[in-house]
Amino acid sequence: MVDKAAARLYNKYLRPRADITAGQGPWRLRGKVMAKEKRVEQITDMEVDFAQWYTDICRKAELVEYASVKGFTILRPYGYAIWENMQRIMDAEFKKTGHVNVAMPVLIPESLLKKEGELVNGFAPEVAWVTMGGSEQLEERLAFRPTSETMFCDHWSRVLHSYRELPMLYNQWCSVIRWEKTTRPFLRSREFWWQEGHTIHETAEEAQAETEQQLNCYADFFEKVLAIPVVRGRKTDKEKFAGAEATYTVECMMKDRKALQGATSHYFGDKFSRAYNVTFTGRDNKLQYPFQTSWGSTTRMIGAVIMAHGDNNGLVLPPHVAPIQAVVVPVAQHKPGVLEKANELYETLKAAGVRVTLDDSDNSLGWKCAQYEMKGVPLRVEIGPKDMENGVCMAVRRDNGEKISIVIDELAARVPELLEQVQQGLYEKAKKNLDEHIYAAHSIEEAKELQEKNGGFIKTMWCGEEACELKMKEQAGMSSRCIPFHQEKLDEVCACCGKPARHMIFWGVAY
Amino acid sequence: MVDKAAARLYNKYLRPRADITAGQGPWRLRGKVMAKEKRVEQITDMEVDFAQWYTDICRKAELVEYASVKGFTILRPYGYAIWENMQRIMDAEFKKTGHVNVAMPVLIPESLLKKEGELVNGFAPEVAWVTMGGSEQLEERLAFRPTSETMFCDHWSRVLHSYRELPMLYNQWCSVIRWEKTTRPFLRSREFWWQEGHTIHETAEEAQAETEQQLNCYADFFEKVLAIPVVRGRKTDKEKFAGAEATYTVECMMKDRKALQGATSHYFGDKFSRAYNVTFTGRDNKLQYPFQTSWGSTTRMIGAVIMAHGDNNGLVLPPHVAPIQAVVVPVAQHKPGVLEKANELYETLKAAGVRVTLDDSDNSLGWKCAQYEMKGVPLRVEIGPKDMENGVCMAVRRDNGEKISIVIDELAARVPELLEQVQQGLYEKAKKNLDEHIYAAHSIEEAKELQEKNGGFIKTMWCGEEACELKMKEQAGMSSRCIPFHQEKLDEVCACCGKPARHMIFWGVAY
Repeated sequence: MVDKAAARLYNKYLRPRADITAGQGPWRLRGKVMAKEKRVEQITDMEVDFAQWYTDICRKAELVEYASVKGFTILRPYGYAIWENMQRIMDAEFKKTGHVNVAMPVLIPESLLKKEGELVNGFAPEVAWVTMGGSEQLEERLAFRPTSETMFCDHWSRVLHSYRELPMLYNQWCSVIRWEKTTRPFLRSREFWWQEGHTIHETAEEAQAETEQQLNCYADFFEKVLAIPVVRGRKTDKEKFAGAEATYTVECMMKDRKALQGATSHYFGDKFSRAYNVTFTGRDNKLQYPFQTSWGSTTRMIGAVIMAHGDNNGLVLPPHVAPIQAVVVPVAQHKPGVLEKANELYETLKAAGVRVTLDDSDNSLGWKCAQYEMKGVPLRVEIGPKDMENGVCMAVRRDNGEKISIVIDELAARVPELLEQVQQGLYEKAKKNLDEHIYAAHSIEEAKELQEKNGGFIKTMWCGEEACELKMKEQAGMSSRCIPFHQEKLDEVCACCGKPARHMIFWGVAY
Repeated sequence: MVDKAAARLYNKYLRPRADITAGQGPWRLRGKVMAKEKRVEQITDMEVDFAQWYTDICRKAELVEYASVKGFTILRPYGYAIWENMQRIMDAEFKKTGHVNVAMPVLIPESLLKKEGELVNGFAPEVAWVTMGGSEQLEERLAFRPTSETMFCDHWSRVLHSYRELPMLYNQWCSVIRWEKTTRPFLRSREFWWQEGHTIHETAEEAQAETEQQLNCYADFFEKVLAIPVVRGRKTDKEKFAGAEATYTVECMMKDRKALQGATSHYFGDKFSRAYNVTFTGRDNKLQYPFQTSWGSTTRMIGAVIMAHGDNNGLVLPPHVAPIQAVVVPVAQHKPGVLEKANELYETLKAAGVRVTLDDSDNSLGWKCAQYEMKGVPLRVEIGPKDMENGVCMAVRRDNGEKISIVIDELAARVPELLEQVQQGLYEKAKKNLDEHIYAAHSIEEAKELQEKNGGFIKTMWCGEEACELKMKEQAGMSSRCIPFHQEKLDEVCACCGKPARHMIFWGVAY
């Protein structure tokens, strides 16, 4: 009969492709991608041009590529693998505290978006509009979600009935569009990938506690997983999320001492509930409005990792999110037994749960080292004839270049330890950078001088008025980063206007 | 200082919420969601109105809800949890064979979409167009992706250089929009969630093997994970994917004996490579075009599960994808020791790796049973005072109602066994349904009669001409489902036109 070719293939299910480890992808394909003709190109020196250094890493470490739509980017396999690790860890944390995932429609009718005035005013200039479906002009244009508070509220207004159903602790992983004028990979692109948590609660206290809990969840994630220390605090009214009663933030400092807003958590009170008519029957049998939160973190965290840890040899990845935690590189691999031994080490580490790869391609040792440095692989494990004689191999730390001789029999125990040391080492270095670059100032002039001289966060007292924020922006080029939870009393009066101070505030030049 | 309230909350990280198991969500919150005032409503009898029965399950099992945008749906927590299990299992399979995930932009410039004529002609009537960004009219309108072949090709045209980089085995999880006129939850909605695999290869043979491999991956997923037997085959030219050289499919049969296309895998040859100028330097040092595949599966698989296994009491979930595999229900829970014992069983099952929940709410036993039947939980484990005396508990299978007395000490071993039996039982029942409803016909009239009488798949010989497909559609109301890999010779001539037959083909009424 016909279709014999197809029938033959039908029996060939799962063509064996040895040595491809789950989740590691084509860079695992021995000697294929690591092709001889490809060169590890030089990247711009970070001291010379930090912005160009950043872009170089994004491209040369194959994290991201520009798309043919202006302002849009493609997350390439290596970049996406970092995002997958971030998602996996974060999603598990959300679930531990009872959150569940959902999927809301990506398009929001204009009338629905407009029900809450502040939100729509905040996002309207950045919305992408769908106006045609197939060949028909739509009666009402639809917004590509810039954020989904409106959709969640609309849904809740139809499914919520009783206080017994509260809290509803929802999250979704998706992409959003904000039509930014200028864009940079990970930091600001028209489409970005994120999670947006949305919750409703019976009482204001519960909702406030949720806002704080999720902020602290982010803070822990930055510090323990991304190895980036943060300053936790509240955004000023000027800087808070459109429509929120309060926005909390984790603020990070990059290697160029600029500030980066890491993730934010918002408390809405019952404002949206009222606007979208979300109600429930309370314990008192009366109709009530629930209290709401939302919180989000995005692929910009990959940008944070690059700028918090990277160096002039490329990316430096914290082991917890590194797609490849260790690479085994044979030295003089043509010598008898070297490749076999290298493969043994690879198998040992794999069995120990390390995300490991083996590069036995015919590329030069120098090329391989440069390549894995560019990609930020935390540990390189070298094994050559001389090492074999001594029953050892050599581990090289990406974060500080330290070389550690390891007895082969101890490899399975030592590598996970070393990875934890790299993780810790990165955090400490970043913590030092943060701690050493927070400066107290007592006037705008002093703040400006300190910022120009040192960069970093400038802390001052503040009266609480937006006028003073605008003055600081105009005269010293800094925006308010947050009102830290951890307050100090630097002075009695506002550094900007001399009126009585209400808060200590952090200023910075931000991404 | 100010912000003391915030600082206090700051110390309260991870408010303890005992007994919420990761990934199980609010339906795990004891006695909260399972509120007394909520009643399990009756659903339409499937023999009376299968379509309404389906919609009832979608809503009453809280899988999906309509959105305020026409034709769009919301995946609710319980529905999304099923999708998450599907994603997790499938993603791991993809990675085993070397595939990596990426994220492509959601918007495609019209000019890019138009480069391959057949594709754009196939999808143009269903495209949603973004024509405004912020307040600006866009110079070129952008398509919300209906599928992403064009974006992948555009990307590859810029990053592919050498045969050494091949194959590139990419996949992405995302949502797409197709502006359908009539919609049904999961089966046909304007936005749906899916994975789309896209690969390029050095040779046609490799690409064809990939197409087959992925089809078989889907077939295995349907049969082993969703417990739905499939017919594997090739689509006719009329039914194949726009722009593909060949489309392969796994076709399923629902309980109403209608057909449902499960998932498809496409071979493109080098057609798109040529249209999008994707080239590489081959082993012969000459510029060549790679060979391409794509393959996709969607949230419609949830619809398939509903219609393949559901009954008049609601959803019936295969244990492999069930968010809750077993629920512990105490009987006469006010009696001393019952709740404690129920909790023990819960802890035992949790420790055994079962996705288990305990319902110790104050709802009635009858309500609880009906509720978990509606939600399709594969096993209900009842424990009451009398059982306790005998050191046993009672497991009730959702698929066939069978009650099994289990010695409590053996629970951890027996429940996973029983879950496998449920999984197997569902498959066998569905296989019987499929096998018993494939009928051979030798003319259109006979085909029509068989379809009207029995439903199911009608198999006939076919000449290979589209004219005969149109005739079958017109006269018997059936579309061609596939040319099965497993061919039989029913006749010498085509059942539609009497010309020499080239294939045996399956016909059906499809969703």
